[in-house]
Amino acid sequence: MPLPERFREYAEMVDQYLDRHLPGDNAPPEPIYRAMRYSLFAGGKRLRPVLCLAGAESLYGQAETMLPVGAAVEMIHTYSLIHDDLPAMDNDDFRRGKPTSHKAFGEAIAVLAGDALLTAGLETLSRADYDPAVRCRLIRLLTAAAGTEGMIGGQVLDMVNENKTLTRDQLDQLHAKKTGAILRFCTLSAPVVLGRGPEIEQIFLQYGSLLGLAFQITDDILDVVSTTEKLGKTAGKDEKEKKATYPSILGLEESRRTAGRLIDQACALISPHDPRSYLRDLALYVVERDH
Amino acid sequence: MPLPERFREYAEMVDQYLDRHLPGDNAPPEPIYRAMRYSLFAGGKRLRPVLCLAGAESLYGQAETMLPVGAAVEMIHTYSLIHDDLPAMDNDDFRRGKPTSHKAFGEAIAVLAGDALLTAGLETLSRADYDPAVRCRLIRLLTAAAGTEGMIGGQVLDMVNENKTLTRDQLDQLHAKKTGAILRFCTLSAPVVLGRGPEIEQIFLQYGSLLGLAFQITDDILDVVSTTEKLGKTAGKDEKEKKATYPSILGLEESRRTAGRLIDQACALISPHDPRSYLRDLALYVVERDH
Repeated sequence: MPLPERFREYAEMVDQYLDRHLPGDNAPPEPIYRAMRYSLFAGGKRLRPVLCLAGAESLYGQAETMLPVGAAVEMIHTYSLIHDDLPAMDNDDFRRGKPTSHKAFGEAIAVLAGDALLTAGLETLSRADYDPAVRCRLIRLLTAAAGTEGMIGGQVLDMVNENKTLTRDQLDQLHAKKTGAILRFCTLSAPVVLGRGPEIEQIFLQYGSLLGLAFQITDDILDVVSTTEKLGKTAGKDEKEKKATYPSILGLEESRRTAGRLIDQACALISPHDPRSYLRDLALYVVERDH
Repeated sequence: MPLPERFREYAEMVDQYLDRHLPGDNAPPEPIYRAMRYSLFAGGKRLRPVLCLAGAESLYGQAETMLPVGAAVEMIHTYSLIHDDLPAMDNDDFRRGKPTSHKAFGEAIAVLAGDALLTAGLETLSRADYDPAVRCRLIRLLTAAAGTEGMIGGQVLDMVNENKTLTRDQLDQLHAKKTGAILRFCTLSAPVVLGRGPEIEQIFLQYGSLLGLAFQITDDILDVVSTTEKLGKTAGKDEKEKKATYPSILGLEESRRTAGRLIDQACALISPHDPRSYLRDLALYVVERDH
């Protein structure tokens, strides 16, 4: 299942925004911008910014309004991939079908390109054309989602749990941080920017929570059933590294059913606030994608 | 010359603030907070936060007011040291007399501890008890100072210029980014937080600019004349790595005179706004310190 047409338009808008706001490949000091752009424009699905933009349109706002948030979150997602791929971390040679940053630019530039994307992502929010209180709140939410209580914390848990057997609960908690925190930030961001109040925020956050878990279960399933070619990253890595995954705990069929149930819940929850079914379509895409 | 008494009080206030705001060594997920604290409390001079606090008192504000800024800037300074020390970068085994982060915790945790300190530093500003417009401006200034047009850009220049002969101008430009940008942020931060207006801001910025360059020249001199024991990091590294430094371009004596002249200019510029001579004392400390 490819990304539905409307969402490819969103992804294109985000790409253009990022391209306009980042100095060119050859801007000094070389090669830092080339390295940032190399990973940023490596053909990612842009799922995170698409969630931000779709959220706004489902709340009768403009998708364009969310571009600074979408750009910031994609820069931070990209930084995390560059650092995760480093030899000292996952030691991956390929990402999105291309050599990873440290393979293309060397480790030192890969570390700095990651650092620079994290910094630039937050700078983008600090400069966005929102009320300062909204900008501050977004930065607070995004740093919390990306930090030691969110993404980085999940990454640490993932490392210290290597070769350990985890319960379903422990795996849920790990992924609620590692991939879930940023996805929840994305779905929460539209009601925050549009000022829709705490009740709507709560519903969008809960939708993000369900979608995030279904996303991770699907990622684990794809690692088993898909190919390196389709994924653009090494398939079968989880089993080789004896990682605790949903298929290893629940089996493939039960993993699929669990992801399906989560997505059904997410759709039911969001449907009163999803007049054009964009968020329903995105939820379905998350579990039906093939890469 | 040790840090003057008043400034050791500032440093102590910053340490207490950092200690209060960071989870403990054993907080989950281990060992991330232990690694962050290990580098953060490794006995740094706290020069950057001290500049923020002293700036406020010289403008008849409270030193306490600047604690979130001082804490943020020290976290970001510490992140940059952790990443700079990595094997792929400067490959240093000692920092402030202790094993570097990657020696103590392994490379993966060192990368993540750096990422986490950068993220936490900016989160601290987003949560500070200032008007949201002030918080946003501080985050914009600090991300610009820490990013590709500031510290990271200087780091990249430093790498690509290895084994090259630089002119005095090129060396000035490199260090204006690598160490200067963050130091300028520090001296600028007090008039920003206290709302003293663009003219005072400009003077404090210029003071930071002169002080920053004198700081770097002194660092280069200390690398030649001091010992590994006193510095807490490997002495004599610059010459061994054939780095362009002020002593290598100007000679030791002319380097000392240049630093002295810069500090005289800084003191003259700031004296109308420095009723207690704190900023003068700090400027003198910067060139007279022995580590």
